[in-house]
Amino acid sequence: MLADQGATIERASGHRLEVGPVLVRDLSKPRPGVDRSLLTTDPERVLGDPSVAAVVEVMGGVDPTLGYLRRALESGRAVVTANKQLLSRHGPELLSAAEAAGTEIRFEASACAAIPVIKVLRESLLAAEIASVVGIVNGTTNFILTEMRRRGRSYGDALRLAQELGYAEADPTEDVGGADAAAKMAILSSIAFHSRVLLDDVPYEGIDRLQSEDVELAAELGFAIKLLGVACLIDGGVSARVYPALVPADHPLAAIGGPDNAVLLESSTVRQIMLVGPGAGGRETASAVVADLLSILGTHRGSFLHNALADAGRPIVPPALVESAFYVRLQVTDQPGVLAAVASIFGEQGVSIRTVVQKGEGESARLVMVLHRGPEGRFEAAMERVSSLDAVNGEPVALRVLGAGGGAATAL
Amino acid sequence: MLADQGATIERASGHRLEVGPVLVRDLSKPRPGVDRSLLTTDPERVLGDPSVAAVVEVMGGVDPTLGYLRRALESGRAVVTANKQLLSRHGPELLSAAEAAGTEIRFEASACAAIPVIKVLRESLLAAEIASVVGIVNGTTNFILTEMRRRGRSYGDALRLAQELGYAEADPTEDVGGADAAAKMAILSSIAFHSRVLLDDVPYEGIDRLQSEDVELAAELGFAIKLLGVACLIDGGVSARVYPALVPADHPLAAIGGPDNAVLLESSTVRQIMLVGPGAGGRETASAVVADLLSILGTHRGSFLHNALADAGRPIVPPALVESAFYVRLQVTDQPGVLAAVASIFGEQGVSIRTVVQKGEGESARLVMVLHRGPEGRFEAAMERVSSLDAVNGEPVALRVLGAGGGAATAL
Repeated sequence: MLADQGATIERASGHRLEVGPVLVRDLSKPRPGVDRSLLTTDPERVLGDPSVAAVVEVMGGVDPTLGYLRRALESGRAVVTANKQLLSRHGPELLSAAEAAGTEIRFEASACAAIPVIKVLRESLLAAEIASVVGIVNGTTNFILTEMRRRGRSYGDALRLAQELGYAEADPTEDVGGADAAAKMAILSSIAFHSRVLLDDVPYEGIDRLQSEDVELAAELGFAIKLLGVACLIDGGVSARVYPALVPADHPLAAIGGPDNAVLLESSTVRQIMLVGPGAGGRETASAVVADLLSILGTHRGSFLHNALADAGRPIVPPALVESAFYVRLQVTDQPGVLAAVASIFGEQGVSIRTVVQKGEGESARLVMVLHRGPEGRFEAAMERVSSLDAVNGEPVALRVLGAGGGAATAL
Repeated sequence: MLADQGATIERASGHRLEVGPVLVRDLSKPRPGVDRSLLTTDPERVLGDPSVAAVVEVMGGVDPTLGYLRRALESGRAVVTANKQLLSRHGPELLSAAEAAGTEIRFEASACAAIPVIKVLRESLLAAEIASVVGIVNGTTNFILTEMRRRGRSYGDALRLAQELGYAEADPTEDVGGADAAAKMAILSSIAFHSRVLLDDVPYEGIDRLQSEDVELAAELGFAIKLLGVACLIDGGVSARVYPALVPADHPLAAIGGPDNAVLLESSTVRQIMLVGPGAGGRETASAVVADLLSILGTHRGSFLHNALADAGRPIVPPALVESAFYVRLQVTDQPGVLAAVASIFGEQGVSIRTVVQKGEGESARLVMVLHRGPEGRFEAAMERVSSLDAVNGEPVALRVLGAGGGAATAL
């Protein structure tokens, strides 16, 4: 990411990030795109190098990681880490070490990868008096539960599928037993409540003892079962726990399917704010780590609108060139051949029809169509001809359709 | 908010924010909680005061606001504004003025109030290469469309209800015509694509010509109609528009009901990230303004974990004192009196039953119950006695239920 996006990052932030020495366990492992001369198995080459301004830790584990990070902070270096196990056990001492040395430790990637929950809590909602944090913070279990509910799979089958698709480890205990979610909730509740919440303070249950029967009965009663992290303030104290729970089908968390994560933040000031996204992944983690580095350096020296301010902005694309799918409703005279005439006009413009429904009869006959995606200019040209058909009465209605052919962006 | 939360803000950020002179149109209007000696109708008292470090603008409009803010920036003061009309027309020149003077302008509240979309785009996703921004960015129209779809109201009836509830202005043109959403999309797409997108670059349609018939037909076809802001990159150019569109019922944006806003950010790096929350409101706007002030000042001087680090953390609440609602499944011997025995045990512990279903017969008879909220200690005590009943076989299953009695926090 630093190699690909270096120029963008520099223009936007005013900083060029350069990769220094990289501590690895095994020098012989192939690492495409990494300068081999930077690789080392000697921690001293990282921690003792005065040109290293910030240390990024993605090695995991508590020992020897804790010692390395403490040393980095004590020498005044900033630290960015993705290590939830370390933070949920030793977060307060690392934060104290950073404060004492006048530097910073950031750890967005430690909870929900690129979903910026920590930044939002620390900065955007600093004064918002958070009352609760309720989240789906483990993607493995959410995938398994989604498969159990939507496809009627057993827990064992869903777990095997998760393993095949790479959503679950060969040893899934940390995820399915709830420990992974508990570590994230310790971190999130510390920040939400400006308090000290360690992993040992978060009782957790997983989904490994959940029975299909209860998933089915819950569905009958109008609930989805989700593994939730639930943290809230009760009479000035903090309660943070992880357990499988029934969520009403119309609750926003019930709609979070597959391996996605979601965190719902409640506060009297901002009511409910929910953040949703992928909770894991290499590029997602990298994105969070880079954002943390830039937060430490500060982005005020650059211009995040650099293209705009340099008058080298991107052009505005005219609507006729945008591809969209359309819904069309036509008031028609109920006679043979109307649909054929309409369909042939769309066909000549290369706009294909996905579904057609005829509604009503006689005077109130209507053709309701959903079209496939195509350039809007072609659609407009077809609609002009359709409107002028004798059998088409009144003003046709045309509305765009989202998501009819892929992601949101590609479908519009 | 500054008065109520001043101490928290100072501990967490290292800064004490003090309110300076306040420019108002009408001195006689009652303003509870505001020091009257700070009120003035003379802009010079704000702009000419060397002790003013940052100017917060919530007066709205383009003239004379633009001149005031330009002057504030040129004198090196930071500016925080909630003014989407001004930014969507003159954003680039204000940003240039800030850059030239070595200061900052921030404007989180100008799009979606307390939902931190701008901060997330500017900072968390700076290197994420955003491909599209698709959002429900106007609460008034989302409320109206939700009422039309879910309750079968006409557009006129839903608009009147929105006006009664304070979700729509007496003159709703800006909202229902799409101009409000277009201003927000100009701001969001500028930031997402590091480019210059002004209000004039955003073609918009509203929902004022939408017919109930199309809302109903869309529902039959499996879609909800939403007023969407859609911005994406097409061959290096920017397309940003606002229009009512059909959204598949299982798309995350279809679930956003009432006056809520939601913004879906797509990127090859972080896939989809969605932010949801209230898009308007006085306290929500205040929260965003305070967060912007703290972003400008930087929070690194304070400790956002001040309670934890001062060893004055909040206590951890034991689970027995937490109130939860439960789902319970019991394997029972199919004989008269079992339900009565179970119900009386729960009754004695003050735990009331919301629903009971008996499933199966004979050997496979089961009682499935959803209980009302109560302290977990009482529930545990009741369950211990229930388990020991002769007619209850095997291990009972108990799972917590979210949202059975209010917000997420209060219900668990």
